[in-house]
Amino acid sequence: MISWVSRMLPRNVRSLATSSENPRAEDCHRHHEAYGYFLPIQTRWQDNDQYGHVNNAVYYSYFDTIINHYLIRYCGLKTGLRTSPMVGFMVTNQCTFYTPVGFPQVPVAALAVEKVGHSSVHYRLALFPPTPTKEPATADQHDLNDGFFFGHPKLAQFDALASTTGSSVHVFVNPATNKPTGLPEDFRRGLLRLMRPASL
Amino acid sequence: MISWVSRMLPRNVRSLATSSENPRAEDCHRHHEAYGYFLPIQTRWQDNDQYGHVNNAVYYSYFDTIINHYLIRYCGLKTGLRTSPMVGFMVTNQCTFYTPVGFPQVPVAALAVEKVGHSSVHYRLALFPPTPTKEPATADQHDLNDGFFFGHPKLAQFDALASTTGSSVHVFVNPATNKPTGLPEDFRRGLLRLMRPASL
Amino acid sequence: MISWVSRMLPRNVRSLATSSENPRAEDCHRHHEAYGYFLPIQTRWQDNDQYGHVNNAVYYSYFDTIINHYLIRYCGLKTGLRTSPMVGFMVTNQCTFYTPVGFPQVPVAALAVEKVGHSSVHYRLALFPPTPTKEPATADQHDLNDGFFFGHPKLAQFDALASTTGSSVHVFVNPATNKPTGLPEDFRRGLLRLMRPASL
Amino acid sequence: MISWVSRMLPRNVRSLATSSENPRAEDCHRHHEAYGYFLPIQTRWQDNDQYGHVNNAVYYSYFDTIINHYLIRYCGLKTGLRTSPMVGFMVTNQCTFYTPVGFPQVPVAALAVEKVGHSSVHYRLALFPPTPTKEPATADQHDLNDGFFFGHPKLAQFDALASTTGSSVHVFVNPATNKPTGLPEDFRRGLLRLMRPASL
Repeated sequence: MISWVSRMLPRNVRSLATSSENPRAEDCHRHHEAYGYFLPIQTRWQDNDQYGHVNNAVYYSYFDTIINHYLIRYCGLKTGLRTSPMVGFMVTNQCTFYTPVGFPQVPVAALAVEKVGHSSVHYRLALFPPTPTKEPATADQHDLNDGFFFGHPKLAQFDALASTTGSSVHVFVNPATNKPTGLPEDFRRGLLRLMRPASL
Repeated sequence: MISWVSRMLPRNVRSLATSSENPRAEDCHRHHEAYGYFLPIQTRWQDNDQYGHVNNAVYYSYFDTIINHYLIRYCGLKTGLRTSPMVGFMVTNQCTFYTPVGFPQVPVAALAVEKVGHSSVHYRLALFPPTPTKEPATADQHDLNDGFFFGHPKLAQFDALASTTGSSVHVFVNPATNKPTGLPEDFRRGLLRLMRPASL
Repeated sequence: MISWVSRMLPRNVRSLATSSENPRAEDCHRHHEAYGYFLPIQTRWQDNDQYGHVNNAVYYSYFDTIINHYLIRYCGLKTGLRTSPMVGFMVTNQCTFYTPVGFPQVPVAALAVEKVGHSSVHYRLALFPPTPTKEPATADQHDLNDGFFFGHPKLAQFDALASTTGSSVHVFVNPATNKPTGLPEDFRRGLLRLMRPASL
Repeated sequence: MISWVSRMLPRNVRSLATSSENPRAEDCHRHHEAYGYFLPIQTRWQDNDQYGHVNNAVYYSYFDTIINHYLIRYCGLKTGLRTSPMVGFMVTNQCTFYTPVGFPQVPVAALAVEKVGHSSVHYRLALFPPTPTKEPATADQHDLNDGFFFGHPKLAQFDALASTTGSSVHVFVNPATNKPTGLPEDFRRGLLRLMRPASL
């Protein structure tokens, strides 16, 4: 697993991969401190495609998982369609892939909130591969249920540089009317917790 | 299924959904004539998530499918890992979702080539939902194996406006060395066939 | 793609693969005439796993797709969770894999109904790979929306022997009470159409 | 989440769900002591289908994951297609679904080995949902990388009764010849560790 993308890509592709505007800005999105919340991701045998690495579409389901996990666990989102007063629809999302990961690795997904609007939320996302040579840090065992926040010693188990970065925008609508709905206060509060200086 | 995104989104989200630079440019990516190749997509029961629409990650597997289908069928790509002299890795991709689709609809995916580099290819992608009220056009039956090209009467069966647009960049590497590899002439020729005036 | 399972397996595995009771019975489930309804299946790039063939779990999503497609298109099933008076839960299912298929092949799935109970349905399923050497038969173009029934000339495009066979049992429950619900008459009628002599 | 299957099914479906032969035998497959190895499974947002529960096909990918995880971690399996001297093909598999699970639950998958042949392996599988009311047991944090074995206190965090049981058969073939290959001694030793009295 080598960082072949940044090293080997023709210059024009590399600048696209760093989403043009500002390579320095993109670089900062590859570090732990740009994110507030972390959730280990269990890769599956089926995630690897014919080329032996996690297929690009699967990363989006990892990122869906950390987002919905955080919204349910820390913002009070109810996802039952019959009972939920609001549902989140994805408006746009994107990923840049620097290095591959593959089953059976256990990387960690990272989440930041860039902006909270009246009915929309802008997220920043990343995936950090496990560091093969380091001893796993001492940490509690509730990671899959609770995740952990920036500053946790467990982060030392993962590479300092993201193998994939991404972003996405959710808009929340009332499922009965399909119209955007204002975000409740406690929901908004949970999200603001993940707005970090680095992403302002 | 209504075009709720463009109609109901707050202005700032809408402008993000149209990828900022130029709303007029984005609009042109929502029309048939921006694309050269089309492949019907069979949705699956499992594609719908808890909210009853195709999950955002699944669109990326639709777009992977039309890309690899075209590369195998029209550009001579060999995908067997043991035998293939080059494999395509996704460097970056993005989607914007205007209106949802869902199983059991049969939309059509659309593919254009924006740029062919030494070892990389930039694609434009879209998904057009079926038009519910129109009579299906008379067309040949080989759609799933061959797809069809712009100008085909079958296009009349699908909405004029894309429900989803996207883009992605492949870089082709030699699987033995993991280094970018120059694209063979006939492979390049197959791709150039999908470079359209609209995407220049 | 060779029929390595039946040819090469140790005898004891082979007998398990033919679900023990009666190899003759199993053999009859590998032929077109055991099935009433057929739906082409579009494989996806992501369906192939690291070994280059469709992953075993993906076959179950093919079979889910033909079942739900038939129930919606021919039996009047409504699948919207907010509006549906009954939802189908899978109680048990199984598959036997004789030969692999892989993207970009377009096999055909086959469906038979073995038994219709008060609130349950027993299905038989199979997947037939495309026949590489035969000219595609002349057929109409609505296959993905309508599928086709036994006797259709299109069947000549597919191998006479199934590469995979399976079975499953649905029980239909009222989503409000989670209790089994009697199947409506027209729903039952659509199912009985697929009860074939071969499966009695 | 109620055990509606066993409680509410018509008798004939229930007997099918318990795979006919011996309901007592099936019952014993629903308990922890029938299994030797356990791996927590992280559900994903995308695993839930339109009815709000994990789709039946997804269970097979959970079971693929625990099997391959055990083979790689404890039996020395190499899965790189270019380098692996043997690859496992699924010959047959089946599941019975008693109660649903859903994202964001973290159930535990369970694995037993029923038989090790010359080139084939028969597995027993189960999924145990988390016990909502119990305090999580004190346990080490390496669960996703290492799993744990029968007797571990962590098992107390999960229901005593499986929500799903299954079985499957792998045959291992030489990828160069596609012919069954004898299992190496250390590979066989790793498997025999999971042959339990209960499954004899």
